[in-house]
Amino acid sequence: MLKKLYAEFIGTFWLVLGGCGSAVLATGNLDVGIGWLGVSLAFGLTVLTMAYAVGGISGGHFNPAVSLGLMVAGKFDRAELIPYWIAQVLGAIAAGFILWIIANGAEGFSSAGNFALNGYGLASPGGYGLFAALVCEIVMTAMFLLIILGATSKGVPAGFAPIAIGLGLTLIHLISIPVTNTSVNPARSTGVALFGGGTAMLQLWLFWVAPLAGGALGAIIWKMIEPDQSEDAN
Amino acid sequence: MLKKLYAEFIGTFWLVLGGCGSAVLATGNLDVGIGWLGVSLAFGLTVLTMAYAVGGISGGHFNPAVSLGLMVAGKFDRAELIPYWIAQVLGAIAAGFILWIIANGAEGFSSAGNFALNGYGLASPGGYGLFAALVCEIVMTAMFLLIILGATSKGVPAGFAPIAIGLGLTLIHLISIPVTNTSVNPARSTGVALFGGGTAMLQLWLFWVAPLAGGALGAIIWKMIEPDQSEDAN
Amino acid sequence: MLKKLYAEFIGTFWLVLGGCGSAVLATGNLDVGIGWLGVSLAFGLTVLTMAYAVGGISGGHFNPAVSLGLMVAGKFDRAELIPYWIAQVLGAIAAGFILWIIANGAEGFSSAGNFALNGYGLASPGGYGLFAALVCEIVMTAMFLLIILGATSKGVPAGFAPIAIGLGLTLIHLISIPVTNTSVNPARSTGVALFGGGTAMLQLWLFWVAPLAGGALGAIIWKMIEPDQSEDAN
Amino acid sequence: MLKKLYAEFIGTFWLVLGGCGSAVLATGNLDVGIGWLGVSLAFGLTVLTMAYAVGGISGGHFNPAVSLGLMVAGKFDRAELIPYWIAQVLGAIAAGFILWIIANGAEGFSSAGNFALNGYGLASPGGYGLFAALVCEIVMTAMFLLIILGATSKGVPAGFAPIAIGLGLTLIHLISIPVTNTSVNPARSTGVALFGGGTAMLQLWLFWVAPLAGGALGAIIWKMIEPDQSEDAN
Repeated sequence: MLKKLYAEFIGTFWLVLGGCGSAVLATGNLDVGIGWLGVSLAFGLTVLTMAYAVGGISGGHFNPAVSLGLMVAGKFDRAELIPYWIAQVLGAIAAGFILWIIANGAEGFSSAGNFALNGYGLASPGGYGLFAALVCEIVMTAMFLLIILGATSKGVPAGFAPIAIGLGLTLIHLISIPVTNTSVNPARSTGVALFGGGTAMLQLWLFWVAPLAGGALGAIIWKMIEPDQSEDAN
Repeated sequence: MLKKLYAEFIGTFWLVLGGCGSAVLATGNLDVGIGWLGVSLAFGLTVLTMAYAVGGISGGHFNPAVSLGLMVAGKFDRAELIPYWIAQVLGAIAAGFILWIIANGAEGFSSAGNFALNGYGLASPGGYGLFAALVCEIVMTAMFLLIILGATSKGVPAGFAPIAIGLGLTLIHLISIPVTNTSVNPARSTGVALFGGGTAMLQLWLFWVAPLAGGALGAIIWKMIEPDQSEDAN
Repeated sequence: MLKKLYAEFIGTFWLVLGGCGSAVLATGNLDVGIGWLGVSLAFGLTVLTMAYAVGGISGGHFNPAVSLGLMVAGKFDRAELIPYWIAQVLGAIAAGFILWIIANGAEGFSSAGNFALNGYGLASPGGYGLFAALVCEIVMTAMFLLIILGATSKGVPAGFAPIAIGLGLTLIHLISIPVTNTSVNPARSTGVALFGGGTAMLQLWLFWVAPLAGGALGAIIWKMIEPDQSEDAN
Repeated sequence: MLKKLYAEFIGTFWLVLGGCGSAVLATGNLDVGIGWLGVSLAFGLTVLTMAYAVGGISGGHFNPAVSLGLMVAGKFDRAELIPYWIAQVLGAIAAGFILWIIANGAEGFSSAGNFALNGYGLASPGGYGLFAALVCEIVMTAMFLLIILGATSKGVPAGFAPIAIGLGLTLIHLISIPVTNTSVNPARSTGVALFGGGTAMLQLWLFWVAPLAGGALGAIIWKMIEPDQSEDAN
């Protein structure tokens, strides 16, 4: 069990350090900066790499909404949910701290409003309101769970799931960074909100509520279309 | 059968929400926007992810031209063609609706002429005329079917087809977004034309005729080069 | 044998239509255009997709320098070399023609000097001279053959070679587009030079000599490091 | 043994020629240049391609920090460490030389400060200081080793490791190019510093110390979470 929690801690650490780190450090220089495309790729590759590296140990959730969705779908033990959530949030906070240290290595850095924070309304990159943000986070997380549950089901040859899931997260970012800066992961939102403060903390509730609701919704949709022969897959 | 139709509905929903959504939401900000490269990647990843997630349930067509091509090649049951088409078009329309809701969450959005619509002549991103649009959509869809039929044939190790097919759709977009905004999929064109209206509705015929013709053509070419030992593959 | 030649024709057709097509059609619009990164990805994905689609039929060379290198390494029958070369060049020319038709669908297009042509000196995108062009094309083609021979050798699990080879071609373009617009493939150079004319025709000799020399060199280096147990792999 | 060293020489040669080459040659033209995103992809693809091509011969380290980390984790023979390091550094220097020849083929090129050099302080792309550079290189190399050790462990189906490891290196570059221009590889830093001179030579110590420390650290963390049943994997 402890190895599982270490694995979730490390995986979520990498998700936040890599995804948010690329956004904070590498998008400022507009001539050669990586833009939203690079950030989208980075988030996806954190999951792809860690799912191969430690997915065999913990299942490779790295995300409270994924753990909840897998539990709703009957693929994850209810008793492990809270320990997983704690490991994930701690990993995200540790990543926020390391990123804060590195980012402060350049003069003039301020984490306020500039730390890959999730938000809506005035805090949305494209100025999207609360309702659009809710719809977007719920739909995106539901589709993420469908990808995860489908790609780890019995019909899919072993080994391809991390590619589908990681690149699925890239896709989700390609769509929704303008709307909420993309969460679909309460731990990721929390890990940077603690260092970016202010508005991000006030709006953090949405990035727990919507991804968790979306994760459960995705699991329910999956149960409707799941092939009968599949009993257990993750 | 119902599970197959749900899977086609969901897959086509994701194709339109992800592909068109990335174009509508994430290309406007030129400093960090994802550009045609990001949109191309997004379209491909919708198919890659859904082919892994639900491809084992429905075959993972998500496209009336693909269903037709597979039928022509003898890999898909004629009796299922129309139900599949209906599920695909309904999924695309549902995605157009959700995208329209999210996009309207930012002030000043108008879907007229700005909703990832397919078109030719004045409605082509690069001003390409009707003839070039026809040639381009037919050739691109034919090559798409060749990739699909080849990558799902018996000689290819199981599991790689979604990568080849998804990234094949990315490639097709890298080439042809400037010409028609890339359809190769009548459902995708229809799903957004209903919300973008006007010119897109008037030109919609081409994005049914050309992809369907191209899909059948690709299937015919494949039958010429198909290895003899392969009888059934999809 | 005829199916093999059809497959090489189609694969090389796609390589030139996709790779050169993305360059000709989709790089002009600097705000959302795909740039050298998108073109590099497109070239790689043509090979990745066609290697999965028809690689099992013909071996998936799509390139006279690859056929020569495989022959030098003892993986390809000497008697098939010239037929393969003819099919590859014809496929490339067919692609040049289709691309020329589509590109002319937009007003003001001229293929002179603007048709994804390979060149050195004043015809090099970055103004690189003859010697740098020679060194670059030879080294890049040699490394390409090393990737092909290694990724198709016995130690590598079946199915991954198209990923390594296709993305290897992407990588080669990321490095060398500025130098020669990247050939490493005499058929690709020929297919567009016929339509772009002038300088491209005068410099075409280099894009036969250097890739062929590099292909043979890569094969020779591979024979030095090839594991003993491997007798036949492609 | 000699074949292993040739393989490490070639692989590290390609890593530096491809990764640094794309940075030196293809980022200058801001309209179509590949930017940090393209360079990140290039570095990752050098490892992905060579891991498939020659990974079966030498294990595919191409990096002194990787060899050290694998030794610390008990996956690599202590007696081979120094020969591997020598082959890697020689391969990197050979690549620096070939790149210097090609780059000088365009008028006005100067390698001083413009040769994909690693650095901190004034030599950091984003002006990051010594402490941030140290933290960043140590953490990034540690995570790289975790990815390598996990993706090559027994639980992961054969063949996927080069994808995870190569794209992991891409991810590391997406995060950390602004900080140090990304090393995580002492051979890569040395191969270009010799040609770029000055500051790069004076700061080269950090790009040996930090990656080696990070490599060892990653190995130690892996041993804490490694599943019991796995005894040997690389």
